[in-house]
Amino acid sequence: MRFKTSLVVRFGDIDHAGIVYYPRFFNYVHMAFEDFFREGLGLPFDEIIDKRGIGFPIVHAESDFMKFLKYGDRIRVEVYLLRAGRTSLSFGFDVIREEGNILAARVRITNAAINRKTFKAIPCPPDLKELFLRYSEPDPRSQDK
Amino acid sequence: MRFKTSLVVRFGDIDHAGIVYYPRFFNYVHMAFEDFFREGLGLPFDEIIDKRGIGFPIVHAESDFMKFLKYGDRIRVEVYLLRAGRTSLSFGFDVIREEGNILAARVRITNAAINRKTFKAIPCPPDLKELFLRYSEPDPRSQDK
Amino acid sequence: MRFKTSLVVRFGDIDHAGIVYYPRFFNYVHMAFEDFFREGLGLPFDEIIDKRGIGFPIVHAESDFMKFLKYGDRIRVEVYLLRAGRTSLSFGFDVIREEGNILAARVRITNAAINRKTFKAIPCPPDLKELFLRYSEPDPRSQDK
Amino acid sequence: MRFKTSLVVRFGDIDHAGIVYYPRFFNYVHMAFEDFFREGLGLPFDEIIDKRGIGFPIVHAESDFMKFLKYGDRIRVEVYLLRAGRTSLSFGFDVIREEGNILAARVRITNAAINRKTFKAIPCPPDLKELFLRYSEPDPRSQDK
Repeated sequence: MRFKTSLVVRFGDIDHAGIVYYPRFFNYVHMAFEDFFREGLGLPFDEIIDKRGIGFPIVHAESDFMKFLKYGDRIRVEVYLLRAGRTSLSFGFDVIREEGNILAARVRITNAAINRKTFKAIPCPPDLKELFLRYSEPDPRSQDK
Repeated sequence: MRFKTSLVVRFGDIDHAGIVYYPRFFNYVHMAFEDFFREGLGLPFDEIIDKRGIGFPIVHAESDFMKFLKYGDRIRVEVYLLRAGRTSLSFGFDVIREEGNILAARVRITNAAINRKTFKAIPCPPDLKELFLRYSEPDPRSQDK
Repeated sequence: MRFKTSLVVRFGDIDHAGIVYYPRFFNYVHMAFEDFFREGLGLPFDEIIDKRGIGFPIVHAESDFMKFLKYGDRIRVEVYLLRAGRTSLSFGFDVIREEGNILAARVRITNAAINRKTFKAIPCPPDLKELFLRYSEPDPRSQDK
Repeated sequence: MRFKTSLVVRFGDIDHAGIVYYPRFFNYVHMAFEDFFREGLGLPFDEIIDKRGIGFPIVHAESDFMKFLKYGDRIRVEVYLLRAGRTSLSFGFDVIREEGNILAARVRITNAAINRKTFKAIPCPPDLKELFLRYSEPDPRSQDK
């Protein structure tokens, strides 16, 4: 199952080349990650961070960019779990332009689970892991092969 | 006396219209404010905020925009004190394009002094006020009249 | 009549002081302005800019900030026309925190109407002016007095 | 040879977790890339884009994040060429915290060379390739093994 959320390319997202400034894709991905927690898991991100004291800092990010995005493009970000390790998680994010249903970028993010006070790695809490696993999907990049 | 700092218009500062996205001017102003504390006053911003527990949140901001800025423009931001009240401060910021020495924007920011824990207004500490007063300048907007 | 649009304070909108970085308020305002064109007027911003060749660059911006915003806050931006001059327009924007219905910032923006090619001031096209006038409202700041 | 440029972590670069919002690392990398063109190669980025009509859009980006960055951290970004293909280039970027000389992130970016008008892939112009090759370095990730 994939979690899906919608965004619009904003005036300030554009760069001097007239297309979406590529670091902004990671911003879209983070916004989708926040929506995923709040709407997909029913757990606002700040509840986990501030109340449960758990952080999920990024340890690895990678993205293939297939298609430029332009001002006003409506996009859909699809979020799915690629791997749930003991102390780390990998999520996939497909950034899709609604018009023509075109894959604009495919992103993979690996997060560590940490204790927000000690900043040390901790096992991902089982209740969260169970929630994440509902969104488990095979890696679309290996399927392409 | 004015404090001066230099910036370059970046690729991601541009908007769909091909000019600097106007909210970015306030970003330049904030960056200049940080440089002003660190280099002009010799007081890193975080020292005041984190160690002395004083905050200077913005209560009012206004700006006149006279000239578009484009990618690669080198700009100079000049910072000066307009007014030091008991619990608030007003600073002026002139955003100048180096090429042609052209005033692109004139900004006025009013900050309140607050206790970072209680978030309540406090008198601006005398030692800081004294430092700020070195950069006191008449309001260039009243001189224009 | 006011145009209303909703936003959520994002993870990356926060600054070192733990509250919304104030330049981001102008970003919210611009996003609301884009939504106002697309949803309120039925005219996507890029249609006006790219197809009709009209630009509305900002010549003046000012804001009073009354309340800090924090991560996860749901906000509502209300857009209304304050004044329609021959070659310029002034819009008001109330940034309201949904929780408690609290006014966090009151912003006033003045835009010039320009020809996008010559970058010269032009009279605001009558059909656009008529659309804008539907959202005409008295200035809430004068009512406060 | 590596090209080196310096940056400071800004107030607005921080996220709700109190550390640099990770998409901002790619912003630092882009800023370093712009500095590399202007200062390292003596070719302002916009000259290549606007005058020669060549674009270098990103087709792949990946980063390992080793260390959190905090407000006020002085960082050095080191830029080096990893691979110069016929129509694509890969650059490495080491984001280093000056204090303690600590590697905070290691980024690899692959750019395609395109004709800015047709948006089609073109061979990287030989004069640019020659300039890039001066900054050729072995991949530090393979050396680590």
